[in-house]
Amino acid sequence: MQTRDRIVGVAASLMQERGVARTTIEDIQAAAGISSSQLYHYFTDKSTLVAAVIELQGQRVLDVQHLGLDRVTCVDDLWRWRDLVIGIRTAQNCVGGCPLGSLAADLSETDAVARAQLARWFAEWERILRTGLASMASAGQFIEGTDTDRLALALLAATQGGLLLSQVNRDTAALAAAMDTVIAHIGTHLTQAGNTVQHR
Amino acid sequence: MQTRDRIVGVAASLMQERGVARTTIEDIQAAAGISSSQLYHYFTDKSTLVAAVIELQGQRVLDVQHLGLDRVTCVDDLWRWRDLVIGIRTAQNCVGGCPLGSLAADLSETDAVARAQLARWFAEWERILRTGLASMASAGQFIEGTDTDRLALALLAATQGGLLLSQVNRDTAALAAAMDTVIAHIGTHLTQAGNTVQHR
Repeated sequence: MQTRDRIVGVAASLMQERGVARTTIEDIQAAAGISSSQLYHYFTDKSTLVAAVIELQGQRVLDVQHLGLDRVTCVDDLWRWRDLVIGIRTAQNCVGGCPLGSLAADLSETDAVARAQLARWFAEWERILRTGLASMASAGQFIEGTDTDRLALALLAATQGGLLLSQVNRDTAALAAAMDTVIAHIGTHLTQAGNTVQHR
Repeated sequence: MQTRDRIVGVAASLMQERGVARTTIEDIQAAAGISSSQLYHYFTDKSTLVAAVIELQGQRVLDVQHLGLDRVTCVDDLWRWRDLVIGIRTAQNCVGGCPLGSLAADLSETDAVARAQLARWFAEWERILRTGLASMASAGQFIEGTDTDRLALALLAATQGGLLLSQVNRDTAALAAAMDTVIAHIGTHLTQAGNTVQHR
């Protein structure tokens, strides 16, 4: 792995474990096994490193969403994505929050640039969900007047809240309840055609 | 106000603005206008002060929930609580997160005692929601088999996620979409009796 990537990866891990403020440049240098001059060769200050961490974590989180949501053809695909997300949290023993959500809570009030950068990643996540529901709508699966964009946003928010509560409670009950409830509500908007392709 | 209360109030404000790690004991002393010996008279270290801040913020957040949810008699009362929560966020221009959610994201991985303390406050919030839905169930407003406890937990998670996204995006769209979707889904479980008392 290139040095720059190693620095960003190490910084992302430490910031995810401790938060941004509790992670010093010295901690990152030590954990990455590099010198101060090497680090400053790539990053002029902590905020440029934080920006790189947000990009890395945004890409990681979105990769999972693409995996689960890029070919949504029916509501069953949303259930499979739900299983994927809950499976990941279960494998993590619910330790750590959503990397994007944690950075958002950490930085939104103290770093306006980071907040805007995080808002762009959440908008991208929202767009993936919207696209998934829109493709079901194009296939005539939703009853007329269904606001799939708003349902997509609700699903994102429910997932985020569930991820935060899974971190605090160290169990997935709230995450499952929230995702299940919103997906079930999406299910109440299905046409007969939409219900026919639904197998669960 | 007594000195101890003033210290905790100031610490809560600073920690809400900057996060716990960025708030030093010296910052709190200066903002509260007290000496180091006065502060240490009440709090032996930062972690006892953090515990007091969690209690204060927990009580504040729960006071709002009690106000909105203590006498839930029909789904309209949930809509009024939704309006209350969104009204508060709008008045705050979506600055700052949920005080409990922010502390949870900030402390869950670095302070196991704080995490457990925060989990108790979230459990109390969940209990208020469960009680509200249970009182509707007792009045015969939900169809048989409705799992009101799980709907309450979903509503809490959706609200938390919406609050976090309102902080990142500086608008209430995700909060409104999430609360509306879960309350609407609760509405799909109403009996005729439940629908009759529903006016919205």
